[in-house]
Amino acid sequence: MRNLNQDNITQAVIARFGDTPDPRLKEIMTSLVQHLHAFAREVRLTEAEWLEGIAFLTATGQKCDDKRQEFILLSDVLGLSMLTVAMNNDKPRGCTEATVFGPFFVEGAPHYAHGDDVANGAVGEPCEVFAHVRGVKGEPIAGARVDVWQADAEGHYDVQHPGLAHAQGRGVLTTGADGGFHFRTIVAEAYPIPTDGPVGTLLAATKRHPWRPAHLHFKIEAEGYEPLITHVFRSGDQYLDSDAVFGVRQSLVADWVPQPGGGHRLDYDFVLNPLAGPKA
Amino acid sequence: MRNLNQDNITQAVIARFGDTPDPRLKEIMTSLVQHLHAFAREVRLTEAEWLEGIAFLTATGQKCDDKRQEFILLSDVLGLSMLTVAMNNDKPRGCTEATVFGPFFVEGAPHYAHGDDVANGAVGEPCEVFAHVRGVKGEPIAGARVDVWQADAEGHYDVQHPGLAHAQGRGVLTTGADGGFHFRTIVAEAYPIPTDGPVGTLLAATKRHPWRPAHLHFKIEAEGYEPLITHVFRSGDQYLDSDAVFGVRQSLVADWVPQPGGGHRLDYDFVLNPLAGPKA
Repeated sequence: MRNLNQDNITQAVIARFGDTPDPRLKEIMTSLVQHLHAFAREVRLTEAEWLEGIAFLTATGQKCDDKRQEFILLSDVLGLSMLTVAMNNDKPRGCTEATVFGPFFVEGAPHYAHGDDVANGAVGEPCEVFAHVRGVKGEPIAGARVDVWQADAEGHYDVQHPGLAHAQGRGVLTTGADGGFHFRTIVAEAYPIPTDGPVGTLLAATKRHPWRPAHLHFKIEAEGYEPLITHVFRSGDQYLDSDAVFGVRQSLVADWVPQPGGGHRLDYDFVLNPLAGPKA
Repeated sequence: MRNLNQDNITQAVIARFGDTPDPRLKEIMTSLVQHLHAFAREVRLTEAEWLEGIAFLTATGQKCDDKRQEFILLSDVLGLSMLTVAMNNDKPRGCTEATVFGPFFVEGAPHYAHGDDVANGAVGEPCEVFAHVRGVKGEPIAGARVDVWQADAEGHYDVQHPGLAHAQGRGVLTTGADGGFHFRTIVAEAYPIPTDGPVGTLLAATKRHPWRPAHLHFKIEAEGYEPLITHVFRSGDQYLDSDAVFGVRQSLVADWVPQPGGGHRLDYDFVLNPLAGPKA
């Protein structure tokens, strides 16, 4: 294994992973090395470009903290997140589609009762959300845990406000006996993903806009069903066809309906996919 | 651009890079997206594996500081560094071959006169190095700048010793009128690359050893010639055929010769490739 050249090094590296005990890890590393090398060979990567790539990945890692996940953002704008979601969420017809998780979910959000104001001080137009969680046969799913999170009218999630110590536009609800839940919040607005890090530099250098169409995030978990991570997108948004992270599904677009007394109302029903039953 | 699925998302992401002003950046991003997606599709990456990958890359970035470059280390163990070196250093016969840069080069090392002790307190067996820098026609190259750096007998570079404020086993020399340079140092020994970070975790999980065969690093720059980044490897080392970073070239292996009065001596001559002359 001396004098490796651009033609034989890939097989030599793969061979070095030959003793990997976990067959899945071995499969992943083998494929990763093949595609990584194929990329470098295809573009004939120069040493200066290699070093720029090293610097970019380093800066991406160093931009991450407990409230910022720049590598998820990078995965999002490269379409890898949505590709992974698409491959892993091939559900039966009628189930609510999944979309990207995004970098702004936070564990341990406050619990709210039906009708509570999840905005909790976030600025924006008032909005009421009425929703149900059901199974594919229409059965109500009681006791489902629903995480909801969203940006404020200025396009920022609570974790993007320096010094803000409590959750805003973020909470956990539990579905009632009819599978329903209901909360007050603010109207979702389009916003740019954070551009003050390496991903923003990449978007600027490639003349890509950073905007996401207005949406609410939902993560829904219920016993006996596949967890669902998805958004509800706001109809009419100008970015529905150019989401910076490729997440829009037509089935997830809904109307935020202006109400006669002021404010808006969103109605949306979620349909979960049952877990596969026991194998024979 | 809604309802992207695993079959059409790659083309949609590539199209989004369509307005990139720099054609080289566009070429690189297009190829990167194709190969990144092809990898994910080939292994049918799960969402849990995707998240593990995000966490691995994040930890790799966060392990980096001004003295540690974990992404270069990752590139090294995946063979990407050596592949890039091999693609970009196709020199005429007779020129000294290049190898990986490694993560331990430091700008601004102290300058030494011929015969000085570059070890500067680093522990190890004494060794004298006599070398020349020449062109392909044998012409001596005077005034070349030579950076040399190496690990100590315990396998650590100076920057790996916490609190050590001065350079050890690292220095800059200038070739004389005959192209020669000469310095004292310690004998190079085999050592493991750092395993206390994510790259170490990867090597352990894949049952790969972290060892590099004993070597001295050289970076040689002279007006009118291509810069040379290379190692000289110590003959007889047990890791010459399984270098953790795939860097060994047979032409770079040399003898550290035990001397009658004690200590060792290494003789090595470097041959630089002239820069291409002006175009017609």
